[in-house]
Amino acid sequence: MSTQDQRYERGQETLKAITGGTGHAVVEGLKDIAPDLAEWIIAFCYGDVLSRPGLDLRSRQFSTVAALTAMGTAVPQLKVHIEGALNVGCRPEEIVEVILQMAVYAGFPAAINGINAAREVFKEHNISVQQPR
Amino acid sequence: MSTQDQRYERGQETLKAITGGTGHAVVEGLKDIAPDLAEWIIAFCYGDVLSRPGLDLRSRQFSTVAALTAMGTAVPQLKVHIEGALNVGCRPEEIVEVILQMAVYAGFPAAINGINAAREVFKEHNISVQQPR
Amino acid sequence: MSTQDQRYERGQETLKAITGGTGHAVVEGLKDIAPDLAEWIIAFCYGDVLSRPGLDLRSRQFSTVAALTAMGTAVPQLKVHIEGALNVGCRPEEIVEVILQMAVYAGFPAAINGINAAREVFKEHNISVQQPR
Amino acid sequence: MSTQDQRYERGQETLKAITGGTGHAVVEGLKDIAPDLAEWIIAFCYGDVLSRPGLDLRSRQFSTVAALTAMGTAVPQLKVHIEGALNVGCRPEEIVEVILQMAVYAGFPAAINGINAAREVFKEHNISVQQPR
Amino acid sequence: MSTQDQRYERGQETLKAITGGTGHAVVEGLKDIAPDLAEWIIAFCYGDVLSRPGLDLRSRQFSTVAALTAMGTAVPQLKVHIEGALNVGCRPEEIVEVILQMAVYAGFPAAINGINAAREVFKEHNISVQQPR
Amino acid sequence: MSTQDQRYERGQETLKAITGGTGHAVVEGLKDIAPDLAEWIIAFCYGDVLSRPGLDLRSRQFSTVAALTAMGTAVPQLKVHIEGALNVGCRPEEIVEVILQMAVYAGFPAAINGINAAREVFKEHNISVQQPR
Repeated sequence: MSTQDQRYERGQETLKAITGGTGHAVVEGLKDIAPDLAEWIIAFCYGDVLSRPGLDLRSRQFSTVAALTAMGTAVPQLKVHIEGALNVGCRPEEIVEVILQMAVYAGFPAAINGINAAREVFKEHNISVQQPR
Repeated sequence: MSTQDQRYERGQETLKAITGGTGHAVVEGLKDIAPDLAEWIIAFCYGDVLSRPGLDLRSRQFSTVAALTAMGTAVPQLKVHIEGALNVGCRPEEIVEVILQMAVYAGFPAAINGINAAREVFKEHNISVQQPR
Repeated sequence: MSTQDQRYERGQETLKAITGGTGHAVVEGLKDIAPDLAEWIIAFCYGDVLSRPGLDLRSRQFSTVAALTAMGTAVPQLKVHIEGALNVGCRPEEIVEVILQMAVYAGFPAAINGINAAREVFKEHNISVQQPR
Repeated sequence: MSTQDQRYERGQETLKAITGGTGHAVVEGLKDIAPDLAEWIIAFCYGDVLSRPGLDLRSRQFSTVAALTAMGTAVPQLKVHIEGALNVGCRPEEIVEVILQMAVYAGFPAAINGINAAREVFKEHNISVQQPR
Repeated sequence: MSTQDQRYERGQETLKAITGGTGHAVVEGLKDIAPDLAEWIIAFCYGDVLSRPGLDLRSRQFSTVAALTAMGTAVPQLKVHIEGALNVGCRPEEIVEVILQMAVYAGFPAAINGINAAREVFKEHNISVQQPR
Repeated sequence: MSTQDQRYERGQETLKAITGGTGHAVVEGLKDIAPDLAEWIIAFCYGDVLSRPGLDLRSRQFSTVAALTAMGTAVPQLKVHIEGALNVGCRPEEIVEVILQMAVYAGFPAAINGINAAREVFKEHNISVQQPR
């Protein structure tokens, strides 16, 4: 069983690997009124869950992008994790594929709103998407 | 642009590759009162979307399992796609990881219900999960 | 402004027109631990809202079937309102159309689960659906 | 079975009939990073589903407005389809009725947010709503 | 059974107690196109439901804040009810606790978005939150 | 900062206080394929979150019952937490009030399904609800 220090250290590393400066800013921004939420994000979300060895980070980010697109209630977090997907080596075209696939499972509005979130992230990073056909 | 015959053929192949006999049974079962829904599942969902070359089937199934676990409104379809994930080469331990990860994004009840769905599918296939630690 | 008696009377009439004996049973079944919920259903839901003259009952039931299919969290109520749609003159084929349409807006699992609810209602009433093509 | 050309042609016609220039702009706006999503909207959503003869366009738009109001995750699409409802002959007062009815099935916040979406659409079209009483 | 006048009077009092001027403004703002929705909010939501004697207003507001945070589809209403919670004597630190707790049941994005809504409300009222540790 | 042992000890105590034997059984039942999910429930959900001193357990359980009723996707967990509410001193009549209140925020189907969950829990415990009027 990990010690608390190990959880935090591992969490900080995985947070940095996935979300870079963006995730750090989200966590810092919570510290004024919800410092423990910030701690949980590092120690639990990233330290306990997302850093587990049983699944590669690319598959983890595809899964997160899929879920947040389908839920439709977390656009800021979807944008953070589209950026996170890019950070761990998902290609923009693959991210688009995951979002498109959500049209099947969660309906077209979810997919359209997901594509619009992706467009904003891609623009901030000067990424152009290769046409899939 | 694909012809209709190409869409159906490609859809049938992908439906078979992902869902095997289970998906075929779902589609057949719809034909009594909603035959066109059955056709759309083959031609659109599997022929247009899931058979696209831009993302591997393993990543597609991780994404679907993630989304359906997070949504929490589609347990029968979640079970079909957990089986589908197995069919395209996802290991049971990896499927469990994706479902566990949803505790972060959609809450613990969603993850618990997802794990219960996975347990039923694994039992039907006599699959035992290796403990991740 | 309606009196309370008018709300209840109007609500009882509309409840009967839409849901027949099924709705009456639901309302009676709530009286053991939530009698006021039963009252609100009659006076508010059916007396204030569903009995309003500005929209015909067929359009109201199409709207309810669409919403409950899309939400995916209220299968018992969806079945009550599919029966309600039949009661106010919606044809089975039209009800199927509304449910199919939800594949576009809420995804295929929602539509499939909606069709399965409709099949059960239709069977209880010995209704066969004419193939739409 | 329709050819691909027939699906597209029918889809374009129905897209135009329901959403006019607004839908066209949405579809065009997707072509930079998700051109196939744009195609699916035309060929599948409008060509296969919404153009089906088994239900009139007024009932289809009431159903869509109901579902999107109840879901609460698709405000931009709700506005497009409130406009679409007007385009196919739904009166503003009827659209308001459908949204109000969602207070019963999805709660008051969903209905209030739906009314706010309708107000914006009505203002853009200089539509004033006749008081229902 | 209450008369209509009693429902309205009780509703106005409870609306004022919980939401103060903010709720009044919301209700007034609905009167242009949905005056009956405004009436239902007073007579049904506040007159029939929220004014019931069986549960204290603090517990009612904790419950509402929890539900709206978890649903994630009603940010404007969540802000009204965070303010409402303050109005009926919930301490800011307690409101934060309820929102944090939703990380368990609805996931971290829901909790983060809820905290962001609380921050805005607290700022408007010049409230600083005491660190829980 | 707590040590891991402190988190588990505190979590076990709070799990026992809220859910009694039911929660223990849920956690044990997860250990076959998701032992870490079981650990997280104890250490994170109950050890980090629900055992926090800033809010009393009655208010925490009202909040959980409200959220799970509103979400509508977690009936087994709703039943566990209705029982949990009883365990920490919420009266059955108060639990009913919280569920009824969700008719306002999440619609009548959510409230009806919540009442049906409560009825089952109350029956298992031979609890009869005093009529609120």
